[in-house]
Amino acid sequence: MKWMGLSLIGAERGEPGGGTFTGWDPAEGRALEPRYHSAHPHEVERACRLAREAMPVFGALPSRQRAVFLERAAEALLAAEADFLAVTPRETGLPPARIQSELGRAANQFRQFARLLEEGSWVDARIDHAAPERRPAPRPDLRSALRPLGPVAVFGASNFPLAFSVAGGDTASALAAGCPVIAKAHPAHPATSERAGLALREAVLACGLPEGVFSLLFDAGMDVGRALVRHPSIRAVGFTGSRAGGRALMELAAARPEPIPVFAEMGSINPVFILPTALAARPEALAEQLAASMLLGAGQFCTSPGLIVTAGGEGHETFRARLAERLGAAPAVPMLTEGIAERFREGVARLAARPDTRRRVEGESRAAYAVPALFEVELDALLSEPALTEEVFGSCAIVAHVREAGDFARVAAHLEGQLTATLMVEAGDHALAAELLPVLADRVGRVLVNGVPTGVEVCAAMVHGGPYPASSDGRFTAVGTGAIHRFARPVCFQDVPDALLPSELRESNPLNLWRTVDGVLKRG
Amino acid sequence: MKWMGLSLIGAERGEPGGGTFTGWDPAEGRALEPRYHSAHPHEVERACRLAREAMPVFGALPSRQRAVFLERAAEALLAAEADFLAVTPRETGLPPARIQSELGRAANQFRQFARLLEEGSWVDARIDHAAPERRPAPRPDLRSALRPLGPVAVFGASNFPLAFSVAGGDTASALAAGCPVIAKAHPAHPATSERAGLALREAVLACGLPEGVFSLLFDAGMDVGRALVRHPSIRAVGFTGSRAGGRALMELAAARPEPIPVFAEMGSINPVFILPTALAARPEALAEQLAASMLLGAGQFCTSPGLIVTAGGEGHETFRARLAERLGAAPAVPMLTEGIAERFREGVARLAARPDTRRRVEGESRAAYAVPALFEVELDALLSEPALTEEVFGSCAIVAHVREAGDFARVAAHLEGQLTATLMVEAGDHALAAELLPVLADRVGRVLVNGVPTGVEVCAAMVHGGPYPASSDGRFTAVGTGAIHRFARPVCFQDVPDALLPSELRESNPLNLWRTVDGVLKRG
Repeated sequence: MKWMGLSLIGAERGEPGGGTFTGWDPAEGRALEPRYHSAHPHEVERACRLAREAMPVFGALPSRQRAVFLERAAEALLAAEADFLAVTPRETGLPPARIQSELGRAANQFRQFARLLEEGSWVDARIDHAAPERRPAPRPDLRSALRPLGPVAVFGASNFPLAFSVAGGDTASALAAGCPVIAKAHPAHPATSERAGLALREAVLACGLPEGVFSLLFDAGMDVGRALVRHPSIRAVGFTGSRAGGRALMELAAARPEPIPVFAEMGSINPVFILPTALAARPEALAEQLAASMLLGAGQFCTSPGLIVTAGGEGHETFRARLAERLGAAPAVPMLTEGIAERFREGVARLAARPDTRRRVEGESRAAYAVPALFEVELDALLSEPALTEEVFGSCAIVAHVREAGDFARVAAHLEGQLTATLMVEAGDHALAAELLPVLADRVGRVLVNGVPTGVEVCAAMVHGGPYPASSDGRFTAVGTGAIHRFARPVCFQDVPDALLPSELRESNPLNLWRTVDGVLKRG
Repeated sequence: MKWMGLSLIGAERGEPGGGTFTGWDPAEGRALEPRYHSAHPHEVERACRLAREAMPVFGALPSRQRAVFLERAAEALLAAEADFLAVTPRETGLPPARIQSELGRAANQFRQFARLLEEGSWVDARIDHAAPERRPAPRPDLRSALRPLGPVAVFGASNFPLAFSVAGGDTASALAAGCPVIAKAHPAHPATSERAGLALREAVLACGLPEGVFSLLFDAGMDVGRALVRHPSIRAVGFTGSRAGGRALMELAAARPEPIPVFAEMGSINPVFILPTALAARPEALAEQLAASMLLGAGQFCTSPGLIVTAGGEGHETFRARLAERLGAAPAVPMLTEGIAERFREGVARLAARPDTRRRVEGESRAAYAVPALFEVELDALLSEPALTEEVFGSCAIVAHVREAGDFARVAAHLEGQLTATLMVEAGDHALAAELLPVLADRVGRVLVNGVPTGVEVCAAMVHGGPYPASSDGRFTAVGTGAIHRFARPVCFQDVPDALLPSELRESNPLNLWRTVDGVLKRG
């Protein structure tokens, strides 16, 4: 495998020239080969045109044929494992075992969508038969099903070079819906992006699909991304990253002559509430469990716990001491980029400089290397100082303890939108948990009991998304098969002759889908 | 029934004072009693607070209890028929028969949602059971279901004083989802709004629900609406009206610290494509059918046909002549308001003043009274002049004829997003229709064959919404039971003990819902 450092415009390579950049080895602190070339404006234009031209063929492809393509994509990704192991750990600082498991996750996402398409009922087919005898006016025959929105721009995330980047969940779900994808590579892992893009291109061409089904654009700056979000052929945007970045894309998309949805997943502080009986029963185990979650991937997960709210009383001191001890013993590890490490250092320094925080874990972060940080604050400060509930991306958490049971709900109600909230409970805490659950369910996408928020299962029931600012639109998940619904819209066919209907809506139900027929869900 | 001219802030009446306005009889050209008082800022605040406080109770209400409330609302609306007949025709210029049928439609919307809630499966419950033995990490138990977004602001439409106004489809669907509603009355029918608001208040109180489940605000200007859209307690907005109005709300909502979705339904020109065989076979019948659709409700429907694209050749002259004759013979009728009639006159005058249009139906509109307008244009002008594809709200259409079959697809691909597109076909047109359908399905929410776009059936399969600018977000319908999905979002529960789960997610499936369990849709 030879990395060329050039965009993929459909089946062709982009041209060199324009701004360039390189990957960077955060562990060694040095630039990596090759040099990557920003896509030219005419290449952005061409990628968009190809995507648009691919739409009538790709969007109309029978679901089961799209499933074959997704399977092929999964295979092509897995076949590139050696290439990923050669470049991804180097350009991300992540260990090879993590890359292997993340590759499996990326391929699994494509396969889960393939299975969803094979079954086919995700299109939510609805049929209301005509009632010609109805008075005063006859009722027409009405049938609706979901169809692809159109070309989607996907912005790769820095922190999941495989599972949320070029061939990640946004791309898999958009392709599954029948939307061509133009991926904008994250500059933190260009070689990984190039290899993933080649795998997808291979799958597109092997399945005889129009080349515009997938393109990959590199950019040293922000121009390519902006041009994509503004382009009239783009109908939706997927993004994982910072709140500032997501919000900028949301505003760009909202200001278009024809506004489009942006699905931005922007992170969260993932509060953990340790209820009194649980704290008394297993303070050390809770500290171990939470420290492990905080340290996972150097805390570079949008689900990393950043706020721990504990009861006072029994177990309280033990928990805090053990948590501080475990975090204090953790070695400095390279973060994904020096920029991310610098923002982590700045965030930690800001918290350390406040009069209302007590730092529990000391340690200096240097270059791309970061050491965990832990702070304690009083409840009143937490409830009144917005800076204490802002995310510091990395292994950094704040511990606050509540004085009475009702304070848990006060904290919960005070929080901004979150991806997750966790309750640590024993049977004796259930009454309190029952009070807290509806408050939390109003503020978050996923509520966990006795688990850790890191580790986002890819499945039908997953909700990875929450009220703003966790996501741009908390009505959608970015992970799991539900993510396909971001990129589809219903179209209704009224009195259309059977032969002209898409097969999912034909009277004989040739695809054997579950359909809502005259209000009743049925199959066959 | 005594109309008081005051807002409803939960169970209480608003205070007089501040800006006032009155209803207006467009047929007689005179102001109506009583005087309506704008809601004060502190009343907006109070309505929002009450709505927020109602959320934990109303949102957590078992689906079947919400169904009882919706049934009660339907009954209360129907019980007010005499009151509506006393005021609505007068303040809208619409005939009593239309008001009766629209009241039936409004009540029917509440009842359809009640039935949806009784069945209950709309919450899209998904369960993925734990796999504790899975390696390397065990899989947790994950369950998700839809929950209400939170308080919704609904802006009543001018053109459906009952079915899309205070107690219209947006209100019914938001309440069905479990979201309290604050309705902003359209000033064109304040007495109708007041009566509808009282009916909803009666249902809220009769069911023992928190008063904040529903409020109704009057406003002489735009301050109340703006304050609502900006209020942190409001989580979504429903709107039916002009593109300018909808876009303004979209931008206001996108600029909030916490952006919220706006579901704006902004109208459309609803192109009708008359294919060659159909035109040759039944030119007069087509002219009659389309004239009737154009004249319905003085053309004051977002689905009124505004563009007719016909083949040339046989039937062409007959069709055009008959259409012009039927429209020319129609009497002047009052539009909803003098403002709407004035904008109609301006739109018609703008088209008449263009060098590239030929006016086929003359006639002068005066005061609130409007006469239909019909224009003919050349295909090239239609494809190059954006002004020719802008909506003129009212009975106004443009006829263009194509020179060759391929031109139909050119027109279809050229159009902005539309609520509907109609194909008039005979068997000989099916091949051409098959080519056109996918192009149209990409641009519209509903494709009809041999029908008229006016008359939007309330049912599960209806899609009333289309790509921007037809709607703010073409992924959602404003009519039919699918409209509930605008106001709900999924929440996931991970490893939550069964007793703490909402009943729709409990293992025993006590509500007997259809649920996706380990990837398989099943019941019981």
